[in-house]
Amino acid sequence: MKEANSLEVVILAAGQGTRMRSQLPKVLHRLGGKPLLGHVIDAARALGPAAIRIVFGHGGEQVCAALPSADLHWVRQEAQLGTGHAVQMAQPHCADAGQVLVLYGDVPLLQADTLRAFMQSVPEHGMGLMTVRLADPTGYGRVIRDAAGAVMRIVEEKDASPEEKSVGEVNTGIMLLPGKRLGSWLERLGNDNAQGEYYLTDVVSLAREDGVEVQAFAVADPAEVAGVNNKVQLAELERAFQARQARALMLAGVLVTDPARLDIRGEIEIAPDTLLEPNVMLEGRVRIGANCVIGMGCVLRDVELGDGVEVLPYSVMEGARIADRVRIGPFARIRPGTTLAEGVHIGNYVEVKASAIGRGSKVNHLSYIGDAEIGNGVNVGAGAITCNYDGANKHKTIIEDDVFIGSDTQLVAPVRVAQGATIGAGSTITHDAPAGELTLSRPPQRTRTGWKRPTKKSG
Amino acid sequence: MKEANSLEVVILAAGQGTRMRSQLPKVLHRLGGKPLLGHVIDAARALGPAAIRIVFGHGGEQVCAALPSADLHWVRQEAQLGTGHAVQMAQPHCADAGQVLVLYGDVPLLQADTLRAFMQSVPEHGMGLMTVRLADPTGYGRVIRDAAGAVMRIVEEKDASPEEKSVGEVNTGIMLLPGKRLGSWLERLGNDNAQGEYYLTDVVSLAREDGVEVQAFAVADPAEVAGVNNKVQLAELERAFQARQARALMLAGVLVTDPARLDIRGEIEIAPDTLLEPNVMLEGRVRIGANCVIGMGCVLRDVELGDGVEVLPYSVMEGARIADRVRIGPFARIRPGTTLAEGVHIGNYVEVKASAIGRGSKVNHLSYIGDAEIGNGVNVGAGAITCNYDGANKHKTIIEDDVFIGSDTQLVAPVRVAQGATIGAGSTITHDAPAGELTLSRPPQRTRTGWKRPTKKSG
Amino acid sequence: MKEANSLEVVILAAGQGTRMRSQLPKVLHRLGGKPLLGHVIDAARALGPAAIRIVFGHGGEQVCAALPSADLHWVRQEAQLGTGHAVQMAQPHCADAGQVLVLYGDVPLLQADTLRAFMQSVPEHGMGLMTVRLADPTGYGRVIRDAAGAVMRIVEEKDASPEEKSVGEVNTGIMLLPGKRLGSWLERLGNDNAQGEYYLTDVVSLAREDGVEVQAFAVADPAEVAGVNNKVQLAELERAFQARQARALMLAGVLVTDPARLDIRGEIEIAPDTLLEPNVMLEGRVRIGANCVIGMGCVLRDVELGDGVEVLPYSVMEGARIADRVRIGPFARIRPGTTLAEGVHIGNYVEVKASAIGRGSKVNHLSYIGDAEIGNGVNVGAGAITCNYDGANKHKTIIEDDVFIGSDTQLVAPVRVAQGATIGAGSTITHDAPAGELTLSRPPQRTRTGWKRPTKKSG
Repeated sequence: MKEANSLEVVILAAGQGTRMRSQLPKVLHRLGGKPLLGHVIDAARALGPAAIRIVFGHGGEQVCAALPSADLHWVRQEAQLGTGHAVQMAQPHCADAGQVLVLYGDVPLLQADTLRAFMQSVPEHGMGLMTVRLADPTGYGRVIRDAAGAVMRIVEEKDASPEEKSVGEVNTGIMLLPGKRLGSWLERLGNDNAQGEYYLTDVVSLAREDGVEVQAFAVADPAEVAGVNNKVQLAELERAFQARQARALMLAGVLVTDPARLDIRGEIEIAPDTLLEPNVMLEGRVRIGANCVIGMGCVLRDVELGDGVEVLPYSVMEGARIADRVRIGPFARIRPGTTLAEGVHIGNYVEVKASAIGRGSKVNHLSYIGDAEIGNGVNVGAGAITCNYDGANKHKTIIEDDVFIGSDTQLVAPVRVAQGATIGAGSTITHDAPAGELTLSRPPQRTRTGWKRPTKKSG
Repeated sequence: MKEANSLEVVILAAGQGTRMRSQLPKVLHRLGGKPLLGHVIDAARALGPAAIRIVFGHGGEQVCAALPSADLHWVRQEAQLGTGHAVQMAQPHCADAGQVLVLYGDVPLLQADTLRAFMQSVPEHGMGLMTVRLADPTGYGRVIRDAAGAVMRIVEEKDASPEEKSVGEVNTGIMLLPGKRLGSWLERLGNDNAQGEYYLTDVVSLAREDGVEVQAFAVADPAEVAGVNNKVQLAELERAFQARQARALMLAGVLVTDPARLDIRGEIEIAPDTLLEPNVMLEGRVRIGANCVIGMGCVLRDVELGDGVEVLPYSVMEGARIADRVRIGPFARIRPGTTLAEGVHIGNYVEVKASAIGRGSKVNHLSYIGDAEIGNGVNVGAGAITCNYDGANKHKTIIEDDVFIGSDTQLVAPVRVAQGATIGAGSTITHDAPAGELTLSRPPQRTRTGWKRPTKKSG
Repeated sequence: MKEANSLEVVILAAGQGTRMRSQLPKVLHRLGGKPLLGHVIDAARALGPAAIRIVFGHGGEQVCAALPSADLHWVRQEAQLGTGHAVQMAQPHCADAGQVLVLYGDVPLLQADTLRAFMQSVPEHGMGLMTVRLADPTGYGRVIRDAAGAVMRIVEEKDASPEEKSVGEVNTGIMLLPGKRLGSWLERLGNDNAQGEYYLTDVVSLAREDGVEVQAFAVADPAEVAGVNNKVQLAELERAFQARQARALMLAGVLVTDPARLDIRGEIEIAPDTLLEPNVMLEGRVRIGANCVIGMGCVLRDVELGDGVEVLPYSVMEGARIADRVRIGPFARIRPGTTLAEGVHIGNYVEVKASAIGRGSKVNHLSYIGDAEIGNGVNVGAGAITCNYDGANKHKTIIEDDVFIGSDTQLVAPVRVAQGATIGAGSTITHDAPAGELTLSRPPQRTRTGWKRPTKKSG
């Protein structure tokens, strides 16, 4: 490979993407939670280039705003006059001395390792063309090689002879170009074709004219060079991307019940022997320790889990830090700002928001815990609610160690339940409860004799 | 194509379907939520025929009752004596002048467009036979064509020479027959075979005898002519049907995270740029606006959603109208008769039934709202319950604009909370609450000093 | 087939499984909820062998402990010197008179029926070798047959000529060996190879030397002889196993919306015409009657359901007996020790634990029912909670027939609500409630005029 700083990457990202039928520019559509263009930028960055230049057009401001980064150079293509024209917009900014790698903002699965192998295959001062062999090449430009294996020309479907049509190797459009030749070649491109566009593909024949060898490099996996033109193709590449991620996790020791039912959108670290059951979705930054079970259908976003954590089915968690051996769910909702200490149990229909819960404490049923600090060894009964919002402001509930909160209790914040206190079931606690004592608010139970139940009204 | 009113469609729907191992007649098994036979009727109707005649037998009354419609003519086949016999039951009702299209009640994926192309391929006074080319034709009747491409005969597996067995084009049984010949052909059918049945297939040779050309039309997609004989095949066609629907949605601009995890059973309209996450199920009549997100695993039946609606994971909705920018879930349950105005928030573990909720109101946690009218700008606290049922009758709860309902409140209907009122946490509201004031029912908080917690009993 | 008691089965289960990247021995990884080795043992047992000998090594004690059974003979292989060495460990225990079948603990999908056909194919005093034809045999030992079809030799990839490489039939390692020859062959095995291991494969050539015919038996389905070496392969076989189970259920009359989204881990019986919607998971011992609907995403473990039971989406059930026509969910949680009588309704956000609920009773919303006995015709209102735990002990709640429990009631156990009683909404019931009367605990509703709502604080 050449020195890193001799490489400039040009990413073509100006296409309108009409067939996406979307208000969103095509390259901003998401794959694995990240814009298509973001995947291409990441692959480019991994090569350590001197510059990354992105040629944008449709929805331009939106594209630049979605991917802000100091290392990206944005080049506007006002009119959409073809791929050759797009590279012309960027070329004047490129240094003559190095190489120019042309990538596409809607070809998201190309790997940096593949690009490195491609670049290594190109001889000094030569040109490289990435190709792919397709079982059905219909519609693509066929790559015609000479006896030595170098590219002679690319023949479009409509111009191809039957023999040429039988060639399965097709042009991907991805090229490595010698900087000092590129300007000349782009100037010599014509637009004498039905669309009146300047095609980058035509530099292949210009290179041959100039005696520059064009080295073809056939990529092994067609998904790496597949482009997105409509939402059917987007979904296909999404599955390919997810399959790649699932495979990597499994090879690293993670148990995945069904790789086809796993969605990962972010930066994920999972230790070996953790099990991901079907339909788990992981988003953002997720770290999971060893020997955890993430149950059927759980959705985790920006969470950190220790070892031996058990998340029962259909739990939804975001923005939380969960210590070892915590048990959560089913149907639990953990919201941002939550910290659960070792051995905590959060049960069904329990929502926890912006709260810290101490070692071994339990909130097992039908509760809302918001803006609370709960100590160690606390038991919160079914139906308990922290009334943290007075209609204008949020207030804190403090529950100290070893407290027992009876079922269906409301804790009207700000309020403190001191260590070892017991709160009777059904109480509305508006003042602090003293340590070690039973506090409650409860009217006497009465029976009204002779009361008659309502009867069914007709109509 | 011939004039619409010269066409009669005969649908064979009398088969027992023993291999379905079901109490339900085979043609009533559901695909995409609709009986198999219903799919065939819909395709037939799209051709605008003069009549649709359905030959029924097993479970007859059940079949007729399941698909009531004025435009269907039901013909009973008492004894199951083969496909030729089944068409004989219907033929006397058909006009001699036109054409008779024979379809099958257990071949549900055949498209009206394909049928139109098939019919257009048949010459005037000719006969048409729909065929399909299979990679593995084993077991099917091979279509033997003459040099000109017309059908000479159909050879069953057991009678086929090795050369004939190598033919991949097979008979689907779907035929377009000239009305004036059909009666004669059916009369001439024999039942001199192992099963003692009259086979419609034999009209092909009778047509040749009479000098009528038999035009073969090979359908491109084998799924269109695949029949259902057991529940494995039913599941296969269900997935093919769902894939077809998902594809159409994506081409129209809908984002589908995983087309293999989407189930649609009904009439669906979705605007572009709405995202359907994995495992969404849509049933009945569903309309969804633009830029919505339907989260993981949501089940929607007979609902109408505006633009920018966000439905968080695992929400179940039925019979509701939801305005723009509403946010629902996760784990919300919206039941029939519900109307949510713009910007409403319905949170986790909240059930809403037969209620109208006004602009910007929030019911965020653990609540049951039934038979209620809630105004604009209302905040309903966690654990609030409308006690709409007295054991015999349902009653209404009215909550006017800008009310704040404290947590864990019971509103014992019929009851009205007037504009701007505040209800204290934990209250049981049995009488109307006046506007602008704080209303509550709350016993004083007390602490019983010296109370001792129970201790663990052995055993 | 030979007499059952002349057969001994040797299962090789000593491999380290480094590529699994796991603390767990490879053969203990689960497929369909059962250890890999357990599947192999089950297939072996179905043959009725005189003995099953398992050669173990890595994680030995863990393996023996995970699969305790009186009929298994465990043989330790201290050093891992190859498959031939492993069989040597077991051979001295085998009777000379019979046959020895060699199986592998990490090849879990091999069916007893296939093994029977294999054994029947082997001539008296002969040796059998199970093979499989692969589309891509790269890397596997090719089976070279003589003109008569008997195995001449097995050629490893590295030693194969181009012609031999083109052979698609490969060695699976599964063998049926004559007991009286086996000792001699094992003694004659060499370890003159790169790994210094004794390969069982080499007995093929020793058999030929001794004039023993080696019969090859090609298994039809490659999945049956596929081994597990990493978690990618484990997931692949898991899906193959699940597809097999789904297919069997469908052929028996069960409706499965999507066989690719069904997970079964245990012993399942389901009557015809019951529908399993997508993403159902069945674990342990599950029996389901006819005409039930198990909704989207339900997880059932060790439950028994009658006929006509409807389980709405996302219900999680374990250890329960459910009678006919019960309706459960969505989002219901049924925990161990629960019995629901005919026609019971359990609604959304309802948890039931160790309770019996009588005919036609309803718990429809947001409730926790634990350690309760509920009679017939009872209506439990929304938000009702049995306070069964006093912080130290669990107590029972008894609700007799025809009781009406108002919403948001706490029943502080031990407590009894007698027949026909009504409990007012929002009550805390600490004493028994008499039959037929209205019992409640309720403070008066008051309005505090002039109270001002809190205002939003800045910051």
